Amino acid sequence: MASAFIPGQRFDLGLTVLSEEDIISFAKAFDPLDFHTDKGAAEKSFFKGLVASGPHIFTLVHRTQWIPLFGKTVLAGLGVDKWRFFLPVYPGKKILSAVTVQNVKANPEKKHAAVTWFYEFKNEEGALVQSLEMTVLHKID
Amino acid sequence: MASAFIPGQRFDLGLTVLSEEDIISFAKAFDPLDFHTDKGAAEKSFFKGLVASGPHIFTLVHRTQWIPLFGKTVLAGLGVDKWRFFLPVYPGKKILSAVTVQNVKANPEKKHAAVTWFYEFKNEEGALVQSLEMTVLHKID
Repeated sequence: MASAFIPGQRFDLGLTVLSEEDIISFAKAFDPLDFHTDKGAAEKSFFKGLVASGPHIFTLVHRTQWIPLFGKTVLAGLGVDKWRFFLPVYPGKKILSAVTVQNVKANPEKKHAAVTWFYEFKNEEGALVQSLEMTVLHKID
Repeated sequence: MASAFIPGQRFDLGLTVLSEEDIISFAKAFDPLDFHTDKGAAEKSFFKGLVASGPHIFTLVHRTQWIPLFGKTVLAGLGVDKWRFFLPVYPGKKILSAVTVQNVKANPEKKHAAVTWFYEFKNEEGALVQSLEMTVLHKID
């Protein structure tokens, strides 16, 4: 797996559910807007209820799912593009995550490749909640 | 400030220095690659020393500088684009942060505006370390 990244390869990153406590705790640390940290205020907000901070689901899935699979081959992060917050993530709702190898620029002499990964997060109804492109420099054999 | 976002407005977000402890602690929680969490391993890495997780500097400056200035007017996050990690952030080095209003799409009837903010992080030598575009839906009067 470390040595070959093939465009189109898709990896299921499983199902994630954020609790109210998860949402409030992450947001207090990193994104303390009242619709992420205060249920009462959130009910009067644009979202009509508590919602996760935008980066929360990616941050968690990347940490718990992607890094165990691919972390050992990472040389450096290069960029993030087209991160879109299409739909809010409410507490207790199932989010299905997947990542696909979108593009690979290999440099066999230097034994590395710039890999663009396309992350997708969908809700139980199959609607796209978020997506993003992440480009990482990986070691290759 | 809440009511008018004008393209070209620039806000100085001050000087940030990440310590080794800051870098290791953030990375253990969110990005546990060995060149972010282990000095010995980091010295043998691409970076020849411990470096901060890519998202660390933005996450911290956004939380501590941008949210106190603009958080009250946020309705929803819309996206992040063109986040580039040009240079590593080493412990003990000064990073100067600034954000500029890059684009504003106002909807006066709905009293909101989609504002694209351009974040820049520079080192003491004036070299660009990171930049990104963040688009947020804000309340306007």
